[in-house]
Amino acid sequence: MARDGKKINTIAFVTYPGLTLLDLVGPLSAFYGLDWPQVRPEAHWQTVSVGDRVEVIDTDTPMRLIPEKTFDEVPHPFGIIVPGGGAAALEAMTNDAIVDYVRTAAETAEVVGSVSTGAFILAAAGLLDGRQATTHPAYGELLKKLGANYVRRNWVEDGRFISAAGVSGGIDMALYLLARLKNKPIAKRTQTVIEYDPDPPFGGIEQNGGADGNGLAATVVEHQAKLKRALAERPHLHQKLFG
Amino acid sequence: MARDGKKINTIAFVTYPGLTLLDLVGPLSAFYGLDWPQVRPEAHWQTVSVGDRVEVIDTDTPMRLIPEKTFDEVPHPFGIIVPGGGAAALEAMTNDAIVDYVRTAAETAEVVGSVSTGAFILAAAGLLDGRQATTHPAYGELLKKLGANYVRRNWVEDGRFISAAGVSGGIDMALYLLARLKNKPIAKRTQTVIEYDPDPPFGGIEQNGGADGNGLAATVVEHQAKLKRALAERPHLHQKLFG
Repeated sequence: MARDGKKINTIAFVTYPGLTLLDLVGPLSAFYGLDWPQVRPEAHWQTVSVGDRVEVIDTDTPMRLIPEKTFDEVPHPFGIIVPGGGAAALEAMTNDAIVDYVRTAAETAEVVGSVSTGAFILAAAGLLDGRQATTHPAYGELLKKLGANYVRRNWVEDGRFISAAGVSGGIDMALYLLARLKNKPIAKRTQTVIEYDPDPPFGGIEQNGGADGNGLAATVVEHQAKLKRALAERPHLHQKLFG
Repeated sequence: MARDGKKINTIAFVTYPGLTLLDLVGPLSAFYGLDWPQVRPEAHWQTVSVGDRVEVIDTDTPMRLIPEKTFDEVPHPFGIIVPGGGAAALEAMTNDAIVDYVRTAAETAEVVGSVSTGAFILAAAGLLDGRQATTHPAYGELLKKLGANYVRRNWVEDGRFISAAGVSGGIDMALYLLARLKNKPIAKRTQTVIEYDPDPPFGGIEQNGGADGNGLAATVVEHQAKLKRALAERPHLHQKLFG
């Protein structure tokens, strides 16, 4: 509750070591217009990054980050967004602090979202059983094994749950959410402010031969092997993923 | 020089208080494939964020960042990229530490780039006189006054100088640079890894009525007024911009 008596709706970005920085910063920046007061002024809106501890963590780039708050400090956010992280996201599936937070926060959240392999953390929390969800296309088959109804799309919504395939999918998804939570003009204005007018110089991904065509399949196999070892003490997840 | 005797080519991201985080993280993430050793293995490649001091700075989001190195520690990078920052970028034009670093680093750099209003910092360093350059469309007219040959495009290259209009333009530009510095398959593979397959839910920016159609013109006027005050002691820049 803010000083003016209004409710504060918080969108929490869940951080963990090794996350893909752009999966977090893309949607975070697209939420730029969330607190413009002209629309739905009955509440304040804010974003916050949350982590197990408020300390420096590595990302997939040389840049590191410090989450602003601990999980305990933001127990009931309006929404949570879990960024991807390749092998690091799969590893996070075995981290109780992260998975427990996501499960608990999701119970009361009105928006539960993921970007790329962040979907695996939602799945590990048991949130995607039978739900339509997407992830990085290279990981689609693996997500199915966790009970999700994987669809290959830029982003997909299923009730309170929404997932994006990655990077630009995360921005697209956030602009859509902005239109849903505020309105479409705000979403469009945000798109103009952040000058999101994409034109990839070598075309889209389909035209590039897809994930396997670019040799990503080998990377996924390598990540799966790591995950298999990491899940040795999690027979339930191990059984689901590797039979 | 690395331990194996190879040259190290560094791309330095120039940071300053209030920068637009996504303008930095977009290209940074698209340079992910820069050090894949299979192509042009005669050198190592790395990215680094540089700032006046190694201390926490604010960004346009609630997330803050700490540059990894000081300007002094990276005097002659292979390339520099200056992210935008709206009013904060215009204010950075009056910061000698930043402008001097950009000017000096640009003397020896093979790539001198900007994203969005980062172009104003290149212009303040006298680097865009008569050159083709782009910036956020809302700021195009202002950039012309600084002597740049403004073109409204996603990104534009003029010799060693390259500038992007913003966000996705910065990613597009970085993928193009990756193809130029390494090769096109590496750029395509990176695009797949970061799953950059954009599909804005409400179409492109042109269709949204452009910057002015979304009320950005008023913001720019406000930024200009701030800049005018900030430039009181910089008669040379003040004269160029405001006559």
